[in-house]
Amino acid sequence: MLWDIFPRNTRLFLARHSGIWKMLRAAVCLALLSCLQAQEFQGHVSIILLGATGDLAKKYLWQGLFQLYLDEAGKGHSFSFHGAALTAPQQGQELMAKALESLSCPKDMAPGHCAELKGQFLQLSQYRQLKTAEDYQTLSKDIETQVQQEGLWEAGRIFYFSVPPFAYADIARNINSSCRPGPGAWLRVVFEKPFGHDHLSAQQLASELGSFFQEEEMYRVDHYLGKQAVAQILSFRDQNRKALDGLWNRHHVERVEIIMKETVDAEGRTSFYEEYGVIRDTLQNHLTEILTLVAMELPYDISSSAAVLQHKLQTFQALRGLQKSSAVLGQYQAYREQVRRELQRPDSFHSLTPTFAGVLVHVDNLRWEGVPFILMSGKALDERVGYIRILFKNRAYCTQSERHWASEQNRCLPQQIIFYIGHGELGHPAILVSRNLFKPSLPTQSWKEVQDRPGLHLFGRPLSDYYAYSPVRERDAYSTLLAHIFHGRKESFITTENLLASWIFWTPLLGSLANEVPRLYPGGVESDHLLDFEFSGGQLFFSQQPLELLIPGPELAPRPSDFQVLRAQYRESPLISAWPEELISKLANDIEATAVQAVRLFGKFHLALSGGSSPIALFQQLATGHYSFPWAHTHLWLVDERCVPLSDPESNFQGLQAHLLQHIRVPYYNIHPMPVHLHQRLCAEEDQGAQTYASEISALVANSSFDLVLLGMGIDGHTASLFPQSPTGLDGEQLVVLTQSPSRPHQRMSLSLPLINRAKKVAVLVMGKIKREITMLVSRVGHEPKKWPISGVLPLSGQLVWYMDYEAFLG
Amino acid sequence: MLWDIFPRNTRLFLARHSGIWKMLRAAVCLALLSCLQAQEFQGHVSIILLGATGDLAKKYLWQGLFQLYLDEAGKGHSFSFHGAALTAPQQGQELMAKALESLSCPKDMAPGHCAELKGQFLQLSQYRQLKTAEDYQTLSKDIETQVQQEGLWEAGRIFYFSVPPFAYADIARNINSSCRPGPGAWLRVVFEKPFGHDHLSAQQLASELGSFFQEEEMYRVDHYLGKQAVAQILSFRDQNRKALDGLWNRHHVERVEIIMKETVDAEGRTSFYEEYGVIRDTLQNHLTEILTLVAMELPYDISSSAAVLQHKLQTFQALRGLQKSSAVLGQYQAYREQVRRELQRPDSFHSLTPTFAGVLVHVDNLRWEGVPFILMSGKALDERVGYIRILFKNRAYCTQSERHWASEQNRCLPQQIIFYIGHGELGHPAILVSRNLFKPSLPTQSWKEVQDRPGLHLFGRPLSDYYAYSPVRERDAYSTLLAHIFHGRKESFITTENLLASWIFWTPLLGSLANEVPRLYPGGVESDHLLDFEFSGGQLFFSQQPLELLIPGPELAPRPSDFQVLRAQYRESPLISAWPEELISKLANDIEATAVQAVRLFGKFHLALSGGSSPIALFQQLATGHYSFPWAHTHLWLVDERCVPLSDPESNFQGLQAHLLQHIRVPYYNIHPMPVHLHQRLCAEEDQGAQTYASEISALVANSSFDLVLLGMGIDGHTASLFPQSPTGLDGEQLVVLTQSPSRPHQRMSLSLPLINRAKKVAVLVMGKIKREITMLVSRVGHEPKKWPISGVLPLSGQLVWYMDYEAFLG
Repeated sequence: MLWDIFPRNTRLFLARHSGIWKMLRAAVCLALLSCLQAQEFQGHVSIILLGATGDLAKKYLWQGLFQLYLDEAGKGHSFSFHGAALTAPQQGQELMAKALESLSCPKDMAPGHCAELKGQFLQLSQYRQLKTAEDYQTLSKDIETQVQQEGLWEAGRIFYFSVPPFAYADIARNINSSCRPGPGAWLRVVFEKPFGHDHLSAQQLASELGSFFQEEEMYRVDHYLGKQAVAQILSFRDQNRKALDGLWNRHHVERVEIIMKETVDAEGRTSFYEEYGVIRDTLQNHLTEILTLVAMELPYDISSSAAVLQHKLQTFQALRGLQKSSAVLGQYQAYREQVRRELQRPDSFHSLTPTFAGVLVHVDNLRWEGVPFILMSGKALDERVGYIRILFKNRAYCTQSERHWASEQNRCLPQQIIFYIGHGELGHPAILVSRNLFKPSLPTQSWKEVQDRPGLHLFGRPLSDYYAYSPVRERDAYSTLLAHIFHGRKESFITTENLLASWIFWTPLLGSLANEVPRLYPGGVESDHLLDFEFSGGQLFFSQQPLELLIPGPELAPRPSDFQVLRAQYRESPLISAWPEELISKLANDIEATAVQAVRLFGKFHLALSGGSSPIALFQQLATGHYSFPWAHTHLWLVDERCVPLSDPESNFQGLQAHLLQHIRVPYYNIHPMPVHLHQRLCAEEDQGAQTYASEISALVANSSFDLVLLGMGIDGHTASLFPQSPTGLDGEQLVVLTQSPSRPHQRMSLSLPLINRAKKVAVLVMGKIKREITMLVSRVGHEPKKWPISGVLPLSGQLVWYMDYEAFLG
Repeated sequence: MLWDIFPRNTRLFLARHSGIWKMLRAAVCLALLSCLQAQEFQGHVSIILLGATGDLAKKYLWQGLFQLYLDEAGKGHSFSFHGAALTAPQQGQELMAKALESLSCPKDMAPGHCAELKGQFLQLSQYRQLKTAEDYQTLSKDIETQVQQEGLWEAGRIFYFSVPPFAYADIARNINSSCRPGPGAWLRVVFEKPFGHDHLSAQQLASELGSFFQEEEMYRVDHYLGKQAVAQILSFRDQNRKALDGLWNRHHVERVEIIMKETVDAEGRTSFYEEYGVIRDTLQNHLTEILTLVAMELPYDISSSAAVLQHKLQTFQALRGLQKSSAVLGQYQAYREQVRRELQRPDSFHSLTPTFAGVLVHVDNLRWEGVPFILMSGKALDERVGYIRILFKNRAYCTQSERHWASEQNRCLPQQIIFYIGHGELGHPAILVSRNLFKPSLPTQSWKEVQDRPGLHLFGRPLSDYYAYSPVRERDAYSTLLAHIFHGRKESFITTENLLASWIFWTPLLGSLANEVPRLYPGGVESDHLLDFEFSGGQLFFSQQPLELLIPGPELAPRPSDFQVLRAQYRESPLISAWPEELISKLANDIEATAVQAVRLFGKFHLALSGGSSPIALFQQLATGHYSFPWAHTHLWLVDERCVPLSDPESNFQGLQAHLLQHIRVPYYNIHPMPVHLHQRLCAEEDQGAQTYASEISALVANSSFDLVLLGMGIDGHTASLFPQSPTGLDGEQLVVLTQSPSRPHQRMSLSLPLINRAKKVAVLVMGKIKREITMLVSRVGHEPKKWPISGVLPLSGQLVWYMDYEAFLG
């Protein structure tokens, strides 16, 4: 073995000079021996479990500490375990003893040996009341004394905060001031969620803790990262790089599902649950962490916590912001009653807290663009199960009749990789890879192949369709994480940056959903398909209409589609008025018809578009509903532009790019942004941007007469970027002008009224209640462009049409 | 009823003046009556079946004519049927009589009635030898005489060409010169495929026929258009517009499969098959026609043949050109032997004729962009079946465990629409719509719901999962088409334009596949998964590696991947040499590494790219394999440009747009095409395009020093658009210059050598055997840019790297 560690050249050299080899061997062996001896005692570690008699401690932490003791005690450490709480010593001691009774050894350990080790562990564990500053000082002194008396040296101290967050600050202050170990020994403090309630509170909590501890001393637990299937994601990606390299991207992945279903409900925990709800309870932490593990660019060295963290943060950067429409919410029917009972609320009390959420997440980078990441979690569902499912696109055609399909070769059967967290029909953690995909490589010392269970179907296919692996030994998440804490491995814990990035992502959604009424569901199998949801165009919605709409009764209010489009006159021009959706749809149809005609007659269509919010709905409509639009022959011009770089989010061009250009195929050279940014200056007179645009128009647009100009109307009566009293653009010869807006950014470039009025068709789109007053006013004024620039819109020989929604027109 | 035909205003008027109404009613009723009487006799129709004793006539055409007689005889027409062939009268008469013996009536007709009608039909049918010009003259005279003698008037004549195409011209000439009916009566001539062998021969045949017949006289039969499920496609789309409007597009359709599987092989028909092969036999016609029915924009009025044709032609326009890699070919193993036997070929004979083909078609319009249309047809397969399957994208997440899924509400089960042409497991034509999609509307007089057949699975789901409809009465395609011909309905026939559009689409593929060796398959179920195919990046390939590669033996030639990238020196700069694929991959990686570093250091990356063919592979590699490329911070510049509009296919910018820009997201304002087209002129000195580009570079690129310039090398030693002896660009102060190329288009714009040499990194990509000589030459020359501009590439302080594939470098 020693031989093997030398490179081949050295081996060749040594083989030729065996004397040197013998000397070397002796020296190396001596060195190794002394290393091993030094390792024999690795120092004393004190572990202080705060909240030692609480639920989490009883259920997982003591067992995890016992497991740590079993794993590590033989490797040269000495330990002491301090259970701590506010309870008085005598009573606390009793409670703790009870909690420790149920500790269990691994199944394959002889009972006698188990009893012996358990005895040792109990001897090393003692209860201690930690209430006052003095209590902490005493604890620290006691540890020091013990270490000295026993002739040990102190390696470090672990403080595990299994207490409610409100208690964090006090405890942290005491630890920092009294319980830090001496130089050379480490301090590690461990926190359990919740880590705040939103971005602000998480930041406050983080900076509070940051005033007592260094970042590297803090271990924030997300126990899902300790679950075996989750903990394996990065290693799996790493060990199967060759097979996955070409697959792990938008060209091959159809969707990713990150799912956590519970059958239990929130009974007994409603005081916590009312405050948090399902998104804060599971999505913001567990499911988001998993998402980053799946989506991140795989670091070259996945054992580097720093690299993993950096790539995680990059993934957060790439997440598309969530909208209200990115989520669907539910609440099981019994919840309200449970809250009333447990929190003594009146019968009239209604809770809006969701106990079920489905969220559609998009990762806007080149690897994942367009791939839906579906996050779903809920209580009182039909089964308990957690999994991450990566479904690949079916890009095969199988020539044989289905009757003859074999699962291993058949590329038409689903291809998927599933990290099965546990429970469900399978009943244990597993990693499943469709046999028609590839045979994965997994560390054989910790993962073994699963025996087939005929009749068991998972994700649409029999278990035998998968290469299926389960852990050789199932391990509780906490014992895994405690081992990581003990070894100072930070990659399975949530750093402050990571935590805040996650809150930055989730907080806006939580805000926008605050008043959303969740759909009620009966719970269990009864919920049927009530919670199934679908996505389309970035939005998420329940597949089933709410029940009250399924049976429309006479009492049902009229809906927009019950109305007809209204045709009338406004300022002596045709007015089209309808509900917003219909109005946009009508306008889009009219634009397409104009475009088709122009292309038929002249071979091209010159369309000048305004910025602002109303046209965005129009852009979306044109982008997704108009497949015959002659885009290849359409020239797109801007009606006006803000004097900001085109890449600025405030730029009108950006709105056009994001909502229209990205979705259609207009040739690059048919797109004509306004040259507001020349010679690295914005709208400088001497750069003659307006003149440049004017001559571009003159050169390309016959008679400088656009086929269609789309305008809006501001509440001050402005249109394009022509504001009341503007010294330019309202008359004169100039086609394009620089103007000033009363609101920021002040500087603008705009088509002039004379140019607009040369158009063959002008459409003015006015939407929203806010426009009501100006709509009324303008209906009565004459031709007074100085006061109300919109009143100067009067095409010389073209047609003017007003498109107003009912809110703008009828108020 | 008469009342209803008047507009409302008229009705109001008439109601007030009931006298007028009464008069009017009487007059209208009289007019209607005389119309009905006139309709009673609708004229005499002569149908001449050319090739009356051939296979097609015996199998389908006589039966179709009999059916026509049954359907129409009672409606006021008189008929005569002339079976014609080259055979002498006596013998022909006997053969025809034999063919007519097996005519059958509909199942529900009483046998006596059937015998009576059959007797009538036989009486009206006579054999006639048509060989000489006189024969045709006699035929025409006989018809005229008969019409006169019986006191009829002639409505029209149908000539059905059921003869080999080589006989068309003669027959057509004779019909045109001797057999046209008198004024007021119509002539219809019906042709059977093949309609040519490629675009040229189809065009020749079409213009030959066009010299004898008007377009409206010709009916080209594609009998698939008469199959009931196919004939229903447009009507189905029309009648279910509301449900389909939002679904029938790339946002919802995952794929379209157009499939025609046969179990029979080509035995007995190899003389035909050897000449045509599967693509000409079924894909160019049947499957392509179906494709247009599925993909076309639905005309407002689908009964308008002109509108349908126009939309079909638009669909052909949108088809993406096929590459060799768009198809996979197969040949059943017994075929070769059958050809040898039937065509008396020697044992050494090998045929390349495909009997199986899978083709991936893309429709590049906004409705279908990105949706794969899979066309597949083959002989000697495991089952006989034909279908069109539209599979929709799964955009749902179903919260319940699969055990609880119900097929009707469940949006996670496959959603599909299938036009089932016939045969297969179902055994009859049908239209299937997944129950979780919508309940379709079909004409109840012709389509009825199919009874469930438990145990029958179709397309992955039990039959009960579908709304399933079959024809009330199954009708043979020919009888449907004969009825259409009789009624002059042209929409189910192939017009000349349509035919040529299809050949324009298929001919280049047929050319490029001419020497392709098809994969051999055993035939039937034995073929197993051998013919399964997959698509990726627009290419199609068999899922299984060819067998000989599955077991690599010692005799296997070394493959590209067996070689390492070679590192060496060329002109005292680093040289990287490899097989093309590796070379491109290495270059792409190097560019990405340079980009990442530049963005880290300076926040942006300035990349100048050359045009031409070699970079296209690079663009594709960058577009699909580099997910971490910092495109959002990359500025793209052109090294050189041809003086053509940017929209010209010859423009370098077009290559960049098609192969790179379309696939990545570079902000609009980071793209810098060369301004070769200003003031509607190309590269006019006085427009100062070169100077404009130079100042754009100076303004945005620090020190005008690009981060990376990608160059090529021409066989004359040119690089960028700097050609030997160029008076500009090889030295001097100008950054961007206009130059002259020895090849068209002559005018160019190019970065100058001095500007190129300011770059931080210059990569020269040289690929292909054709570059071998110049590579040798340039390796030996010194710094002589006047003779060999490439020799002047010597970055002042940057790095130069040569990327050459083995063919260019080693020859």
